[in-house]
Amino acid sequence: MSTAAQRLSGQPMFQLLARVQDMQREGRDIVRFEIGDTSFPVDQKIVEATQQALSDGHVKYVNSQGMPELREEICQHIRKTHGFLPDPQQVLVMPANGVIDVLMNCIVNPGESVLIPDPGFPTYRAAANHLGVEVQTYRQLEGEDRFYVDPEEVMVRILSQTRLLIVNSPNNPTGMTVTENEAQSLYQVAHERDVYVLSDEVYSRLIYDGEAFSVSQYDHCRERTILLNSFSKGYGMSGWRLGYAVGPVDVIEKMTLLFETVSSCFPPFIQQAGVVALQNDNDGGMVYRQILQESRDLMVGLLNEIPGVSCFVPPGAMYVFADIAGIGMSSQEFSDIALDRAGVSLLPGTNFGQEGEGYVRLCFARDLETIKEGCERLKACFSSNFKKNETIRLHRTVSR
Amino acid sequence: MSTAAQRLSGQPMFQLLARVQDMQREGRDIVRFEIGDTSFPVDQKIVEATQQALSDGHVKYVNSQGMPELREEICQHIRKTHGFLPDPQQVLVMPANGVIDVLMNCIVNPGESVLIPDPGFPTYRAAANHLGVEVQTYRQLEGEDRFYVDPEEVMVRILSQTRLLIVNSPNNPTGMTVTENEAQSLYQVAHERDVYVLSDEVYSRLIYDGEAFSVSQYDHCRERTILLNSFSKGYGMSGWRLGYAVGPVDVIEKMTLLFETVSSCFPPFIQQAGVVALQNDNDGGMVYRQILQESRDLMVGLLNEIPGVSCFVPPGAMYVFADIAGIGMSSQEFSDIALDRAGVSLLPGTNFGQEGEGYVRLCFARDLETIKEGCERLKACFSSNFKKNETIRLHRTVSR
Repeated sequence: MSTAAQRLSGQPMFQLLARVQDMQREGRDIVRFEIGDTSFPVDQKIVEATQQALSDGHVKYVNSQGMPELREEICQHIRKTHGFLPDPQQVLVMPANGVIDVLMNCIVNPGESVLIPDPGFPTYRAAANHLGVEVQTYRQLEGEDRFYVDPEEVMVRILSQTRLLIVNSPNNPTGMTVTENEAQSLYQVAHERDVYVLSDEVYSRLIYDGEAFSVSQYDHCRERTILLNSFSKGYGMSGWRLGYAVGPVDVIEKMTLLFETVSSCFPPFIQQAGVVALQNDNDGGMVYRQILQESRDLMVGLLNEIPGVSCFVPPGAMYVFADIAGIGMSSQEFSDIALDRAGVSLLPGTNFGQEGEGYVRLCFARDLETIKEGCERLKACFSSNFKKNETIRLHRTVSR
Repeated sequence: MSTAAQRLSGQPMFQLLARVQDMQREGRDIVRFEIGDTSFPVDQKIVEATQQALSDGHVKYVNSQGMPELREEICQHIRKTHGFLPDPQQVLVMPANGVIDVLMNCIVNPGESVLIPDPGFPTYRAAANHLGVEVQTYRQLEGEDRFYVDPEEVMVRILSQTRLLIVNSPNNPTGMTVTENEAQSLYQVAHERDVYVLSDEVYSRLIYDGEAFSVSQYDHCRERTILLNSFSKGYGMSGWRLGYAVGPVDVIEKMTLLFETVSSCFPPFIQQAGVVALQNDNDGGMVYRQILQESRDLMVGLLNEIPGVSCFVPPGAMYVFADIAGIGMSSQEFSDIALDRAGVSLLPGTNFGQEGEGYVRLCFARDLETIKEGCERLKACFSSNFKKNETIRLHRTVSR
């Protein structure tokens, strides 16, 4: 095996998934809060558009960068959501996870580094590892009533060999969104230190409170920001694997060449579904978001009733990142016990980086009954563990 | 940009494609023999299976290695076509071009080398280039009435740093298939020199003369062979991007981890189409093949009528690799003139390696009228170029 292969390690989430599926096959009744996917059916218009594209014969090779009609639609969509109109030459259509890998491959050399949030989406680290790229992290901090990012800390963590800063808002796993001031400051930092910025906005359609601000607003993806978005989360289209990057033309050209080399092109009938999804996005996902918001509020309320557990109301994404330090267990212990004794699967915060110690992630994109059942199980299981005088903030002592 | 990005160069075919499409938009009538795709509609059963899978809600994340039912179906298919039954753990479902990249990434280090056919499929070289893997080549030789590969030459070309040998049968661009003796000798060479073998069989459903032999038959993909196949060519499903690798479990495990890192999984409704394609493959593509064979025979006959052009009858794939040395032009000149003056797009043999000098590749997966029209245009354009006493075998003097 190559050294690149040796650097590959399975993501703990997939290992947990396999274990949960085994337990379910054995007849165990598991409430599943671990995977970041919705059980909502995909909009029938999108399904039918895919079927129609198949009937219409959109089934052969197409432009590697993406079909012109979809790239044009993406540009118009960004004009609506971000207030600037990219050129279709700035757009590459491909799976969103692949964008992370292809972008790093194109702008960061092995031995150079990428600066990622901790806690943060595990694929950032996995992609860096397999490419031999060094990883630096900046923290997500706990404020009064929200997680936040400190642009000054980001500034300090950018080293001479740092090529890429990743900003993920709304954030997985914390649900954090950056404010206008934070977005501007982060862009300013990137500009001053001359690094590229990946603005991972795959949860941008799932913002419940406040407005969305994007670091891409300052250079319109023409100089250093690469906007990443996906249809997986916002439209519930995870199985389509449809995403896109918008960035400086020279970066997108290189990314296209790499995507062309490894994949030729993206299935055209799936791209047609993307066109229809964007064209019919009149309410910006309002209905979908209202349902999720109700689920979110229920889960946050119920979790906060468990002694020793506390969580913020996440303004975006589909996760509650709950502080379980008061229970007196590590994240991994808590998660193992939740699964084994309560039949509730969730992810230890440490899956998202060492700053995640003392937290667990639960996906709230579930129906209300499931959320009630799962939270009741957790409460029954862990309430006895809470000892008021032992509420050490474990994650602080461990990693800060 | 990273050094990996600097190593990326566009494949000439895609540049030609863009040029042809521009000419067509300007109203030029182009007979297109360049792209390796069929105009046949995809089997209605496969289209309907994809549509049904969408209606049935197969639209969310699935197992990264591939859905169990498709991997099982692939194993049964290989039992029928190759005479051995792999374990589903030996199978990874992903786009076929991606398999080349992911496999090289997992078993060859930068600075180590891969041994590929020349002429050969350009993605082998493109993937190696972007990974920083060295490329060695072995030739496809012209015999009496066929191209062939000399296992002794392959043996000599394997160096101490060679990790992977690629065998492509039926071959793109020559249509060559390996005989039983050649397959056995190639496996023996790989075994003696302890290298992995990628057996790229994406054209295996398109064999018109003789039988298919695979280097994978000797170790059943358990020790050193990795069988690569795809639904793109054999089922005309190019837009689906559906392919698979079968190999030693430890290699497939690493490849799965890498695929999971960059893509999470492959669209489930496309995988369902694969299940149906294999389940309904009762005649092994007989009808499809008969149509293509008629096209092949027509094209070979017509090309051989052009003075200065000669070609073998390719036993497999969908290309004629025609020797145009008698015309007294380089491959690139011939191709440029064919497009500009005759309105026929085809690929210079040099797109496939330096041993392709003196040849051009034409895809015969076209209807008979198109083939007649294109070949007549070529004959009218080039007949005057033929001067009997100048039939130097250009490709021999240039590169052998």
